[in-house]
Amino acid sequence: MDDIQKIPALMHTIGKQAKEAAKHLAQASTQAKNTALMSAATALRDHTAVILEANAKDVVFGKNKGLSVAMIDRLLLNKERIENIAIGLEAIAVLPDPVGDVMANWQRPNGLDISRIRVPLGVVGVIYESRPNVTADAGALCLKAGNAVILRGGSESFHSNSAIHTCLLTGLRTAGLSEKAIQLVPTRDRAAVGEMLTMTGVIDIIVPRGGRSLVERVQTKSRVPVFAHLEGICHVYVDGAADPKKAIEITLNAKMRRTGICGSAETLLIDEAAAPLAPSIIDALLESGCEVRGDETIQKLDSRVKPATDEDWRTEYLDAIISVKIVTGVKGAIEHIAEHSSGHTETIITEDDKTATEFLTCVDSAIVMHNASTQFADGGEFGMGAEIGIATGRIHARGPVGLEQLTSFKYQVRGTGQTRP
Amino acid sequence: MDDIQKIPALMHTIGKQAKEAAKHLAQASTQAKNTALMSAATALRDHTAVILEANAKDVVFGKNKGLSVAMIDRLLLNKERIENIAIGLEAIAVLPDPVGDVMANWQRPNGLDISRIRVPLGVVGVIYESRPNVTADAGALCLKAGNAVILRGGSESFHSNSAIHTCLLTGLRTAGLSEKAIQLVPTRDRAAVGEMLTMTGVIDIIVPRGGRSLVERVQTKSRVPVFAHLEGICHVYVDGAADPKKAIEITLNAKMRRTGICGSAETLLIDEAAAPLAPSIIDALLESGCEVRGDETIQKLDSRVKPATDEDWRTEYLDAIISVKIVTGVKGAIEHIAEHSSGHTETIITEDDKTATEFLTCVDSAIVMHNASTQFADGGEFGMGAEIGIATGRIHARGPVGLEQLTSFKYQVRGTGQTRP
Repeated sequence: MDDIQKIPALMHTIGKQAKEAAKHLAQASTQAKNTALMSAATALRDHTAVILEANAKDVVFGKNKGLSVAMIDRLLLNKERIENIAIGLEAIAVLPDPVGDVMANWQRPNGLDISRIRVPLGVVGVIYESRPNVTADAGALCLKAGNAVILRGGSESFHSNSAIHTCLLTGLRTAGLSEKAIQLVPTRDRAAVGEMLTMTGVIDIIVPRGGRSLVERVQTKSRVPVFAHLEGICHVYVDGAADPKKAIEITLNAKMRRTGICGSAETLLIDEAAAPLAPSIIDALLESGCEVRGDETIQKLDSRVKPATDEDWRTEYLDAIISVKIVTGVKGAIEHIAEHSSGHTETIITEDDKTATEFLTCVDSAIVMHNASTQFADGGEFGMGAEIGIATGRIHARGPVGLEQLTSFKYQVRGTGQTRP
Repeated sequence: MDDIQKIPALMHTIGKQAKEAAKHLAQASTQAKNTALMSAATALRDHTAVILEANAKDVVFGKNKGLSVAMIDRLLLNKERIENIAIGLEAIAVLPDPVGDVMANWQRPNGLDISRIRVPLGVVGVIYESRPNVTADAGALCLKAGNAVILRGGSESFHSNSAIHTCLLTGLRTAGLSEKAIQLVPTRDRAAVGEMLTMTGVIDIIVPRGGRSLVERVQTKSRVPVFAHLEGICHVYVDGAADPKKAIEITLNAKMRRTGICGSAETLLIDEAAAPLAPSIIDALLESGCEVRGDETIQKLDSRVKPATDEDWRTEYLDAIISVKIVTGVKGAIEHIAEHSSGHTETIITEDDKTATEFLTCVDSAIVMHNASTQFADGGEFGMGAEIGIATGRIHARGPVGLEQLTSFKYQVRGTGQTRP
């Protein structure tokens, strides 16, 4: 009770410090930000033992709490994973600094010179679950974009996050930047999350990173704008004019390369005109260890196919399961996707450019693809460098949320004494 | 009571129709949208008498309700104002269509071709007060950007809005577009506003247009993202290196050209190094009919100056009143603005380019100006065509909200069979 009463005061202080840090960070040089990131990477490597020790505490805590094997794996750090976190920081350091970019410049007939300049968003709040690497990834991306960040990690990774955060602070200190630029909420109390969601005027944007329940809770409760990161119910549509080899290869890759990421396919739509292709695609999926849940037509193709229910068309399995349905042409695919997609990523396999264009134009998702795997839905694969997630909303950020999406802009107007008539 | 129970059902229907219309509108041709706008302009002119009759009813209603003279004036239509609304529609018709713009295009080493394409936002909800012209302006801007719009006007302008809306529907019909593209909430019941603010998944963005209390209510209550349109507490800073003529002319114009718009200046900051200029600026303001509320130094300059209280530094007068304060150099100005500005528009008057750059860089407002009047804070003056307001938030739209700001984007990825390794 006593602690809960202290949370608002704690978060108020953190917020005030973040706003102050953001003011200075907006003017920080690219060099200073990069130094902070490179030094943090070095600190991470130097403190591997300390981080592993902290992580071991979290793993014990997690096991006692009865976390699943998958959850424990997400939580677990080892030398290689820590090295990868360090490499991630260095990768962000070499990305171009978006702050100060002249996005546009034009002159008005009255002589006014107008520029649209990229500026930081301000203060970013990141609410995440068990993966401790998010502490470094999100902290680094926000810093490079000139934002102060308030990190609130999962209670399971409390000690790991704290140990990684210490290395980020070393980086900030080395670069002469405010340590308040990257703050980690120093309590497991969930009331802190509730506070963050109401810190309008302090936090400019909330980025939820985690499972559906976390994201939904944040989106429902937040008074602060949220980057919508819904699940990825991604579709592969095999058109009647599909190349058979591409159809099989892309479907397999989209579903099975990694089944636990948001860009993995959950539903396969097969044009009735491509029905002759269906048996070999279904067989390839089944042979690769994927469970197939099909509509009536698909069920008849193979005794191993299980029946799909209505629920299947709106389920993100994040597992080796796929739902398969026959549709009538690209229009049928577009219609099914409009009704069931989460607006993340969809792909069409076809050799017909006109059909492809119809799909790319009419499917209203953040990412629409032609003859490519949905697993390319990733900031790195897009050439944007690191990302903090894939936004499925339509406001401000859509698709991969990288450095540019973590910025805002302002207009600079230069005159020579103009007054408005 | 019976009516209130019906509002959720009514709004549900309106929302469903808007989503359906948005789907088609996203694919509508520029020509169809322009035809709708031009035909609506013609319909407005043809139905001037009907609109004036409807407006007369609203004026009677408003007078009976005891609206102020200023409120009645906002509500009032005449032939000239209707002609201006028609001209406004035609102006939007000739603006370039933002939908389908290729914002960026690049190739990846694996051969993937990625384009960032401008698409409509979807469904826009506009909540406004007494000015009936907003019905046409907001409806037309949303339409041109490919959005379906749900308009909820003030109860005072109920009949005027409805008459103008009828003309917009004529335009949509003529162009063969869905009449559900521009819907006007057909009730004065305020519960409709409450419904709109919770229509997540249906309305993509809410645009509040009106006074502070409306905007605050919307921002506090809305579960749907809102374009933040706070008031304009705009500052003019006269630097020690200011040109005296520019200082007087720009200050007078920024304050007095029109005092009721959000881009009018509310506070004048004078560098102590520009103190010799202060008497003539203050005198010019007073002579132009402006009330001057000054700090102690300013009060000593002229017996007509009234004392400024702390409240003055955070007040949007929207009237011929200005608060005046002496500050220490550009840093003093930046500090005062950081504390008191609403993040709308600020200007520096100086002949020193280095000082100007410091101001333009460090002042964190949507629009920052050098040697120009704050009254240029306007989409039209920026060359963006019409606008739906000036956003003071940092998410998605900042500064003038024109056609581009009423859009989102998606990524189109073209491959040749790529799978992710």
